[in-house]
Amino acid sequence: MSGQRKIVLYIATSLDGYIATKDDSLEWLFKVEGDGDNGYSEFLETVDTILIGRRTYDWVMDYEKGNFPYKNKKCYVFSKTLSGKNENVEFVNEDIAGFAKKIKETEGKNIWIVGGGELLHFFIKERLVDEFIITIAPTLIGSGIPLFKENNFELELELKNIRRFNQFVELHYVLK
Amino acid sequence: MSGQRKIVLYIATSLDGYIATKDDSLEWLFKVEGDGDNGYSEFLETVDTILIGRRTYDWVMDYEKGNFPYKNKKCYVFSKTLSGKNENVEFVNEDIAGFAKKIKETEGKNIWIVGGGELLHFFIKERLVDEFIITIAPTLIGSGIPLFKENNFELELELKNIRRFNQFVELHYVLK
Repeated sequence: MSGQRKIVLYIATSLDGYIATKDDSLEWLFKVEGDGDNGYSEFLETVDTILIGRRTYDWVMDYEKGNFPYKNKKCYVFSKTLSGKNENVEFVNEDIAGFAKKIKETEGKNIWIVGGGELLHFFIKERLVDEFIITIAPTLIGSGIPLFKENNFELELELKNIRRFNQFVELHYVLK
Repeated sequence: MSGQRKIVLYIATSLDGYIATKDDSLEWLFKVEGDGDNGYSEFLETVDTILIGRRTYDWVMDYEKGNFPYKNKKCYVFSKTLSGKNENVEFVNEDIAGFAKKIKETEGKNIWIVGGGELLHFFIKERLVDEFIITIAPTLIGSGIPLFKENNFELELELKNIRRFNQFVELHYVLK
């Protein structure tokens, strides 16, 4: 259905395909010279809902020193153990694919699938990601958490747009 | 030395970072809609020397049905077992890093390091690659021969140029 809201993967990766080092560091990313906020606030305007894994949620809260960064968005945190909600987020421990499909049927702007790695892999594998906006840093970090995990299927995308933010390249693909 | 000829990695990769499937297939690549020859002949004009691994050389000769595709270039094939030359190529079984450094000191255009995977990894690891021209296909192939192998070092590059060839994106980096 073409008018349906989209689930969008929006993430930065090293040129060798890692979204973070093995110990969750983004230091390599933060030292790259970008341009302004590299399109981040513009992207944020296109979404009103955020999907995030529990471990990544903890990382973000820790990194932001407890200041929830997506205050004006509906934020769902997938967790195997937590349920209910707090002032910022709602915990979801039902079937992830079913939840994602259900939420896409509701009215709204696009939905940002933030991460982490395991959640992204699940969404990609299940063809739940409609658009991929990947910002590539000009750095080989050698090892880390891969954006794309080894898989046994092929996925064809269509290149929608390219943007350059100084040393960053943003590639925007849609699922074919 | 700024006037020195450069060793250039020029290669196509899937969006998930593979240069070929595990059984050396490029079918996923050939079916992507590009634009003309996607800058290939233009690139070829910038090099007069080609470095290639023996297994990749065999693959190319097989793929081209014995018609050597780089006839007007000086072509070195790294091999542990072969030496001497034939009408098209010269086999090299001396120390690879030493050979690469020596050839960079001679006069000429740039030098294309073609592949395959193992040779590329060695050149990258030894900081022998001066420029990276990577053409990204809009496809996740799931597994295969990685362009960048897992490593224990970081390499910072500088983004020089971006070009789009229909569904392909060409990213051009130089070693910092």
